[in-house]
Amino acid sequence: MATLGLIEYGDATAEVRAVYDDIMATRKTDWINNFWKALAHDPATLRRTWQSIKEIMAPGALDPLVKEMLYVAVSVTNQCHYCIASHTASAQQKGMTDAMFKELMAVVGMANETNKMVTGYQVEIDEKFKAGR
Amino acid sequence: MATLGLIEYGDATAEVRAVYDDIMATRKTDWINNFWKALAHDPATLRRTWQSIKEIMAPGALDPLVKEMLYVAVSVTNQCHYCIASHTASAQQKGMTDAMFKELMAVVGMANETNKMVTGYQVEIDEKFKAGR
Amino acid sequence: MATLGLIEYGDATAEVRAVYDDIMATRKTDWINNFWKALAHDPATLRRTWQSIKEIMAPGALDPLVKEMLYVAVSVTNQCHYCIASHTASAQQKGMTDAMFKELMAVVGMANETNKMVTGYQVEIDEKFKAGR
Amino acid sequence: MATLGLIEYGDATAEVRAVYDDIMATRKTDWINNFWKALAHDPATLRRTWQSIKEIMAPGALDPLVKEMLYVAVSVTNQCHYCIASHTASAQQKGMTDAMFKELMAVVGMANETNKMVTGYQVEIDEKFKAGR
Amino acid sequence: MATLGLIEYGDATAEVRAVYDDIMATRKTDWINNFWKALAHDPATLRRTWQSIKEIMAPGALDPLVKEMLYVAVSVTNQCHYCIASHTASAQQKGMTDAMFKELMAVVGMANETNKMVTGYQVEIDEKFKAGR
Amino acid sequence: MATLGLIEYGDATAEVRAVYDDIMATRKTDWINNFWKALAHDPATLRRTWQSIKEIMAPGALDPLVKEMLYVAVSVTNQCHYCIASHTASAQQKGMTDAMFKELMAVVGMANETNKMVTGYQVEIDEKFKAGR
Repeated sequence: MATLGLIEYGDATAEVRAVYDDIMATRKTDWINNFWKALAHDPATLRRTWQSIKEIMAPGALDPLVKEMLYVAVSVTNQCHYCIASHTASAQQKGMTDAMFKELMAVVGMANETNKMVTGYQVEIDEKFKAGR
Repeated sequence: MATLGLIEYGDATAEVRAVYDDIMATRKTDWINNFWKALAHDPATLRRTWQSIKEIMAPGALDPLVKEMLYVAVSVTNQCHYCIASHTASAQQKGMTDAMFKELMAVVGMANETNKMVTGYQVEIDEKFKAGR
Repeated sequence: MATLGLIEYGDATAEVRAVYDDIMATRKTDWINNFWKALAHDPATLRRTWQSIKEIMAPGALDPLVKEMLYVAVSVTNQCHYCIASHTASAQQKGMTDAMFKELMAVVGMANETNKMVTGYQVEIDEKFKAGR
Repeated sequence: MATLGLIEYGDATAEVRAVYDDIMATRKTDWINNFWKALAHDPATLRRTWQSIKEIMAPGALDPLVKEMLYVAVSVTNQCHYCIASHTASAQQKGMTDAMFKELMAVVGMANETNKMVTGYQVEIDEKFKAGR
Repeated sequence: MATLGLIEYGDATAEVRAVYDDIMATRKTDWINNFWKALAHDPATLRRTWQSIKEIMAPGALDPLVKEMLYVAVSVTNQCHYCIASHTASAQQKGMTDAMFKELMAVVGMANETNKMVTGYQVEIDEKFKAGR
Repeated sequence: MATLGLIEYGDATAEVRAVYDDIMATRKTDWINNFWKALAHDPATLRRTWQSIKEIMAPGALDPLVKEMLYVAVSVTNQCHYCIASHTASAQQKGMTDAMFKELMAVVGMANETNKMVTGYQVEIDEKFKAGR
């Protein structure tokens, strides 16, 4: 169970409800997932985190679906089970097909493999990759 | 310096050269980066790893540029400096603009933040996210 | 279930009981948590680990509550669920309020975010930070 | 070198300078460390990240020095060299003595050890630790 | 539940069954564990992953039991519960005694501790260790 | 440079010298690597860490070379550069051939890949693997 418990909409303060309402409006859904209900014990962090995510995950130079898949890639690498479950669901809702999911997993797996082999062999960065600006 | 050193094209066996040639042909480039030169001490692993990467990073349900950005997301999460340098360069070569890179970093940063907050608050997976098939 | 199972006080050897007794006396409690019961299969490691923790977590230049919160910060970053549950409980027992817990989570989340952004942007260490002694 | 390079104060836009000015005023210093100069390529992220850190690291239920040490604990666990260097310096500036640093390192080391042993022995969470609210 | 569900032998295509058959023949067992059943949704990845593991885990310069214990060491460090459970079982089947398991855990725990202390103290690599080839 | 600097033998207290002497005698060498010189600022931690390592890395149910390779596997997974450099050297000194090193890297790479794929596919632990004792 969440350390401080979960705050349901009916029990939330006006400040928390305002965030919940914005989450539901932005995501075009009528429910709030547990992460926000756990964070609602700390309204300042709830608001800051939601504002940041809303801004970052909005369409921009990258497609929102690509952003969700990046989120899954990070969550898998961190072995965060909640995050994998929730962001895989979000990605599917935004159009990730099974074929896309399978390729996503293959890339994430391979990246984790070669990351470690590179480091284990103590490979130095090529001059070409160091260029910078 | 790499643990076993680097094997340059001129010093490579025919088996290793064949892999180097395929890497250069596939990537339309005339050089080999250090990772492969370090791995060349183990020709079986060199071949297997290259074949896997070639297959996985090819166009499919996901765009090759998206795959490179996923690779960067994993490498940043793993704090693998070589991998960040090399795959950022690859992503740029495949068309990643500065605007895309900045959004990529913002998503990766935020994902790492919320991954830990979710876990720290001990949030349970929502029933909706557990559905599966 | 724990790989080798758990050893209860009643089934423990005198050597293991001595460690259990010291844990309970030091922590002013009358029970032993599962970690120690799992480790009890390896009495030398049980003793060594308990001695080290007892020494390290004792009051010193840092307050024991601060040490518990550091333990939670590491456990969250490692995504170790058992460790988060047990050390959050220990911290609460040593006086961590909900307000302190919320700030702890906010700091840990933010640190994980900026850690990855720093690395992803490939930021070099400032000369000022390199000084050392 | 940082992927997009570093933006010095003299080359910064008014928007970026405003953040730089606030960083220097808040920290009572006359220089800006590389992290911010790298992030300045993305003014929205620069502002959001600074605002979040400023809010989170301010005095609250936890002392600012404790917060810095938590930051170091996370950074060490993530093996983020830049972050360790910069936050160790910040902690020292806020009053961390060598004795405190040594205890910090001992706790972080021990936490990382027991985190892994707990998981490796597959220890289940004690009922007492599951209680929640 | 696995994201895409599990594919049982009876429901598998001929291509997948061929891999399942080879897994059972190689491991001298009559069942398939969940990892392969989850991966079976992506037959190309299933085949590639199995071929790689079969090749890598075969006897060579290192004993198969040593390889299994290395697998456990990595899985514990990554906090991958499934991997710890399955590879601990495999190691036991290949002859890992309880005494060996306990030493394995002690080494893995200690390595994780000193890894972090080394990094936290910002220790530079000794010239002797840099030699390479 | 190490945060608190390095303490050379000539500058060390009798307490630290005793540990240095034991390290050199145990390892049959005439020099001390930087990790210990950094830790020497905290003599209690220096002694505790050395005693633990000496005890854990001694011959037992596992061969000392196997233990060194486990140490490398953990260090690679943690991306700890110092640790990889120093323990690869130690393993070589204890008899690790290039062929063994290459297989070690292949196993560590593959383990990191499948660890993430297992988690990403959200695979549940098989009943058979849960048995325990």
